[in-house]
Amino acid sequence: MAKLCVVGLGPGDYDDMTVRADRALRDCDAIIGYHVYVDLVKDRYPDKKTLTTPMTKETDRCRMALEAARNGENVALVCSGDSGIYGMAALVYELRGEAKEPEIEIIPGLTAACSGAALLGAPLTHDFAVVSLSDRLTAWETIEKRLEAAAAADLSIVLYNPASRGRPDHLRRACEILLRSLPAERPCGIARSIGRAGESRDLLTLGELKDAQVDMFCTVFIGNASTRVVGDRLVTSRGYRDV
Amino acid sequence: MAKLCVVGLGPGDYDDMTVRADRALRDCDAIIGYHVYVDLVKDRYPDKKTLTTPMTKETDRCRMALEAARNGENVALVCSGDSGIYGMAALVYELRGEAKEPEIEIIPGLTAACSGAALLGAPLTHDFAVVSLSDRLTAWETIEKRLEAAAAADLSIVLYNPASRGRPDHLRRACEILLRSLPAERPCGIARSIGRAGESRDLLTLGELKDAQVDMFCTVFIGNASTRVVGDRLVTSRGYRDV
Repeated sequence: MAKLCVVGLGPGDYDDMTVRADRALRDCDAIIGYHVYVDLVKDRYPDKKTLTTPMTKETDRCRMALEAARNGENVALVCSGDSGIYGMAALVYELRGEAKEPEIEIIPGLTAACSGAALLGAPLTHDFAVVSLSDRLTAWETIEKRLEAAAAADLSIVLYNPASRGRPDHLRRACEILLRSLPAERPCGIARSIGRAGESRDLLTLGELKDAQVDMFCTVFIGNASTRVVGDRLVTSRGYRDV
Repeated sequence: MAKLCVVGLGPGDYDDMTVRADRALRDCDAIIGYHVYVDLVKDRYPDKKTLTTPMTKETDRCRMALEAARNGENVALVCSGDSGIYGMAALVYELRGEAKEPEIEIIPGLTAACSGAALLGAPLTHDFAVVSLSDRLTAWETIEKRLEAAAAADLSIVLYNPASRGRPDHLRRACEILLRSLPAERPCGIARSIGRAGESRDLLTLGELKDAQVDMFCTVFIGNASTRVVGDRLVTSRGYRDV
């Protein structure tokens, strides 16, 4: 019986894939995914059949992957970053429901919280929250409440999907909410195009972040009370007392 | 000039290391770390010098790594999971301070939020908080406040360090706090010894979690309002409306 692997590719560079993800792509018959992610990997696995769907067609994509596995193909359904965090793993399980087949294997990958933090320094040494600013499937009021709660509890915050063509001002609105309780001097960072052409990092304050230009290839980090800039890196102290 | 790589090993299995982490270990002169993590990898890189320190000696470990790099050795300072999330990356930057040398490279790895979620199913499809229950460096009142805030904002929650020899009842205390605002039927999961001998998963309710036996090799997941059990997996729905 064929298997459906839901594969987290990591940020984009081959070097940041896991050994298990690489093996799943080498061993599969078909690579299925959003066309941008399939394009990232297909040259490395040239003998594989590829099937792609547009951006918002997540359900079609997962159905296509389940169907191919039921028809006897070993499938790698690829996701950018992790396969679980804002990825396709849940939808695949939901669509399979209580059936036992096809077999599903979730292969985790480096999510942008990990890879973006490494690019910026070490902003996630302590407790943190991950919040997506996309309101395509979540009410903006819920997002707002989560930002307020994270700030009030002194969690570092990672913002996924800080902007897209349809929502250019979400980061500004998020910063306005955070600035109600956090100081404008709070150190923040933007990780851009992690592991891909044009990779770069910006360190800036929360006050500056409000007016920063971001796009869908950015991940944004907001420090907690223990975060500071050391050299040219964003660093959150764990609190070792003998430093 | 030699380089200090701070390497996230992922959960423990070689297959879950990234290509970049594997290369750093192959290319280094010395592997430095907590002895349990050095033992996990040393057989695969037998020609490397190894230097280990006991569990609570984080500052000594990072100083040793910086010193070795200053003396011309290429060093891999290894961390379990990610090198940033509750890892050594921040401390290395803090100890180097404003100096430019040695060069530091942070190599991220799969943190238990990603690898444990994959083992349990897909509990982190939507916004979440990561909170450590260790009060060695954090006041228990702060931990309590973070748990309350995460529950109130309907974030899924990942608990690191749910117990250890010195704090056997922290998970019970955390669950009591969460049960003030969350239902006892809320689906939860425990990922044990991810990627190592004895790997296993438990699905249980928040009410049951309160009395569960956990140790320092467990990572605990508490679902949000969209989390349910599908088949034998813990799944948080992203909210695609056409499922």
